[in-house]
Amino acid sequence: MSAVYELEGDLAAEMSLLGKRAREAAKVLANAGTEAKNTALAAMAAAVRANVETILGANAKDLEAARNANLRASFIDRLTLTPDRVEAMAKGLDDIAALPDPVGETLSSWERPNGLKISRVRTPIGVIGIIYESRPNVTADAGALSMKAGNAAILRGGSDSYHSSGAILACLQEGLRAAGLPETVIQAVPTTDRAAVGMMLSGLDGAIDVIVPRGGKGLVGRVEAEARVPVFSHLEGICHVYVDKGAETQMAVDIAVNAKMRRTGICGAAETILVDEAGAGDHLKALIDNLIEAGCTVRGDAAVQAADGRVEAASEEDWSTEYLDTIVSMAVVDGVDAAMDHIRTYGSNHTEAIVTSDEATAEKFLSELDSAIVLHNASTQFADGGEFGMGAEIGIATGKMHARGPVGLEQLTSFKYTVRGSGHTRPG
Amino acid sequence: MSAVYELEGDLAAEMSLLGKRAREAAKVLANAGTEAKNTALAAMAAAVRANVETILGANAKDLEAARNANLRASFIDRLTLTPDRVEAMAKGLDDIAALPDPVGETLSSWERPNGLKISRVRTPIGVIGIIYESRPNVTADAGALSMKAGNAAILRGGSDSYHSSGAILACLQEGLRAAGLPETVIQAVPTTDRAAVGMMLSGLDGAIDVIVPRGGKGLVGRVEAEARVPVFSHLEGICHVYVDKGAETQMAVDIAVNAKMRRTGICGAAETILVDEAGAGDHLKALIDNLIEAGCTVRGDAAVQAADGRVEAASEEDWSTEYLDTIVSMAVVDGVDAAMDHIRTYGSNHTEAIVTSDEATAEKFLSELDSAIVLHNASTQFADGGEFGMGAEIGIATGKMHARGPVGLEQLTSFKYTVRGSGHTRPG
Repeated sequence: MSAVYELEGDLAAEMSLLGKRAREAAKVLANAGTEAKNTALAAMAAAVRANVETILGANAKDLEAARNANLRASFIDRLTLTPDRVEAMAKGLDDIAALPDPVGETLSSWERPNGLKISRVRTPIGVIGIIYESRPNVTADAGALSMKAGNAAILRGGSDSYHSSGAILACLQEGLRAAGLPETVIQAVPTTDRAAVGMMLSGLDGAIDVIVPRGGKGLVGRVEAEARVPVFSHLEGICHVYVDKGAETQMAVDIAVNAKMRRTGICGAAETILVDEAGAGDHLKALIDNLIEAGCTVRGDAAVQAADGRVEAASEEDWSTEYLDTIVSMAVVDGVDAAMDHIRTYGSNHTEAIVTSDEATAEKFLSELDSAIVLHNASTQFADGGEFGMGAEIGIATGKMHARGPVGLEQLTSFKYTVRGSGHTRPG
Repeated sequence: MSAVYELEGDLAAEMSLLGKRAREAAKVLANAGTEAKNTALAAMAAAVRANVETILGANAKDLEAARNANLRASFIDRLTLTPDRVEAMAKGLDDIAALPDPVGETLSSWERPNGLKISRVRTPIGVIGIIYESRPNVTADAGALSMKAGNAAILRGGSDSYHSSGAILACLQEGLRAAGLPETVIQAVPTTDRAAVGMMLSGLDGAIDVIVPRGGKGLVGRVEAEARVPVFSHLEGICHVYVDKGAETQMAVDIAVNAKMRRTGICGAAETILVDEAGAGDHLKALIDNLIEAGCTVRGDAAVQAADGRVEAASEEDWSTEYLDTIVSMAVVDGVDAAMDHIRTYGSNHTEAIVTSDEATAEKFLSELDSAIVLHNASTQFADGGEFGMGAEIGIATGKMHARGPVGLEQLTSFKYTVRGSGHTRPG
C-alpha cells in the first residue's frame, strides 16, 4: 500500500513517551472544566475552517498515493475529503461542544442510616487509544469526543490517510493550545509502522485504559485477539428482523426493506429475516417481492425458496454472514422461540427487531434476547448513537462490560464514589 | 502444601466442558425470574443448616492437612469453620435472597422526537469466574451473589479448602435443584491442579465473561497479569487520610485512629496519614500520641520524627507499602495540592479521606482525586459494600471499567437497550 513513515529513533521508546505524555495530559484535562473544553472545541472547529486548503492539500497527497497503489473505488471514496466534508467535520466539532459535559454528573446519591451521604459521580476514564482505517474524519470525531469526556486520546489512523489525519490533528492541537490545554490531550502515533499498533494493544505499560477500533472485521478481529486492555468494539453486525404471525404485513414489509436496504454498509443493517411459519402465508411472499423489487438478492431455506422461484438457496454459511451488501438471507421458523434460537446460534448480539402486534410476544423477544439492542416494530437501522439521542458516537460495542450499544460521551466515562460525613468512624 | 486432586481425564477437555455447561446454565438462569432464584437461595440456606455436620467434617479434613503442613495460624483461622461460622454463611444466603433482583431493572428511559421509546435495562453478565484462597465461606457468598445477579459461576477455591468448599457447593447445588434450576449454575473446578487457574484466566474459549479474584497480592497480581478477560479486582489498598489545616483536632484523631486501627487487615484500612504543614502545630502531636497509644508503630518523614522521638524513620518504600498491620506511615505536606500529589504518586486509587471543616478544600479533594472512593470527614474503613448499603459484595475494584469500588449485585450485571416503535423506519 502506501509508504511507511519511519521514525528517526527507537519506536518503543517513542511510543512509551507518547503514553506518558497522554497520561500527564489526562490528569490536567480531568480537572480542566467544561468551559476550557468547549473553548478548545470551538477553536478546533475554527482552525479546521481556516485551514481547509491545507487539509485538502494533504488529502490530495494521500489520494495520489492511493490511486497509484490502485486501491478500490470505495476505499478511495472513504479517504476523499471535499470542502463539504471538511465543513461537516468542523460542524461535528461544534456539535460536540454543544453536548452536556458528562464529567462531574451525579449518577445517583443516597444517605445511609448513619448519616453518611454517598454519591456516584462520573469521571473521565483516562487515556483512550483509537485505531482506525482510512476515514480521515475519525481523527476529528474520535479525538474531540474523547476530549469532551475528559480523556486524552492516542490516535492511530490508517497509513493511507497519514497526511490528511496529520493536517486535521494540527487543527485539533491548535484548538487545545488556544484554550490553554496541553496539545498532548490529542496525539497521533508518529509513524505508519504497524508495530506501533501492537504496542498500543499492549496498553503502553498501563498508559492506555481502553482501545476503540474503528474499521473492518480484519482490524477489529486483530484488536480483539491481541489487546491486553479493554476494547469497545463489535466484530460484526449480523442483525435480524423477525416477522411474527401477529405482524401487520405492510409494517413488516416496510421495516424489513428499510432494515436491509436503507444503507447496506452499516453495522445495523439487517442480514437475516426470519418469518413465523404460522404467519408465512400472509407475509412471506410480500416480503420477498418487496425486497427483490428494492434490488435485494434473497437467499432462503427450502420454505422460502418454495414461496418464490427467484429465491436462491441459502447455505449454512449464509446464516452467519454479514453481507454489508444488497443480499439477505431468509428462513421460516416455528414461532418466536425458534426465532430466538436461530438468533442466539448465528447472531452477533448486535441488534435484532421483532415485528408483531402481539404485545406479549414482543415483550418476550425484548426480554429474553441478549443483544445490545432489541427493537419492537422498528427498523434495525436505528442502531446508532445519533438516533438514540446521544449526540455523537465513536462506534457500537457488543461486549458486556462497561459500554454496550452506541459508545457516546457517557460510555467514555468512568465513575467514583464521594462520601460526605461529619466525623464518622466505623464501629465494631 | 496439601495434595493435588487430579482428574481422571484430560484437564483441558474437562475445563472446556465446565465452561460450556456454565454458558448453557447462564442462558436458562438469565430468564428464570426472581422467584426461582430466591427459592433456590432459601433452599441453599436450608441445605447448609441441615448439613452442618457434613460441612464441619469436611472442614476437619482440610484442617488436619493444613496443620500437618505447618501452615500459619492466621491461615488456619481463615480456613476454620465453626457452627457459628456455618450459620453466618446460611444467614448470608438468606440476606442475598432478600436483596432486590437487579435483572430487568430499567436504568433510564426516554422518548425520541420521532416517538421511539428507548430504555436501558439491566441484564446478567453471563458467566463469572471466581478464584479465591482458603476462606471456604467465599464458595457460598460469591456463588450466591453471582446467581442472584443472573450469572452462572465457576469457582476455583484454594486447594487447602478443597473438602470444605466441596461440601458447601453440594448444598448450593441442592438448593438450585430444589428450585428447578440447573445445578451447573454454580460449579467448581474439579481439581486442585493449578493449571486449571491458567485455563480460567484464558476465559475458557469465551465461556467466562469476567474473573473476580479474592485473596492476597500474589493471587490478584497473577490474575491481573495473566487474565485474557476482564477482571474486577484491586491489587492493594494503599489508603490515605489527609488532615487539613482546617480540621478539628479531635475529629482528625478519631478518624485517623479508626481508619488505621479498627481492623488493620482489610483493604480499606489507612496506610498513610498526611498532615497539612499549616495545621501540624495543632494536629501532628495529637495524631502521633493517639496512634501510638492505640498500639500503632509510626514511621515518619523528618518533620514527623521531629515532633516525637518515638517515630521511626520512614523509607521511600514505606509510602507505597500496604502494611495490613499496626504500622502507619506519616508525612507532613504543604496543603491539599501536595497531599493529592503524594496520593497520586504512591497510592493505589482505592480509598482516600480528607478531614477538614473547610468545605472548599474538601470539595477540591473529592473532585480532583481519582480514587474509587473519596471521603470527607469519615474513616476509610467505610470502604465496604455493606456500609454503602449494597447488601453484599464480592470485593472492591480499583479499575476504571464497569465495576469500581464495592462490587455488589448491580456491578455483576450488564445492560441492553430496548426500543419500542409503531412501525418506525429510518429515513434518509
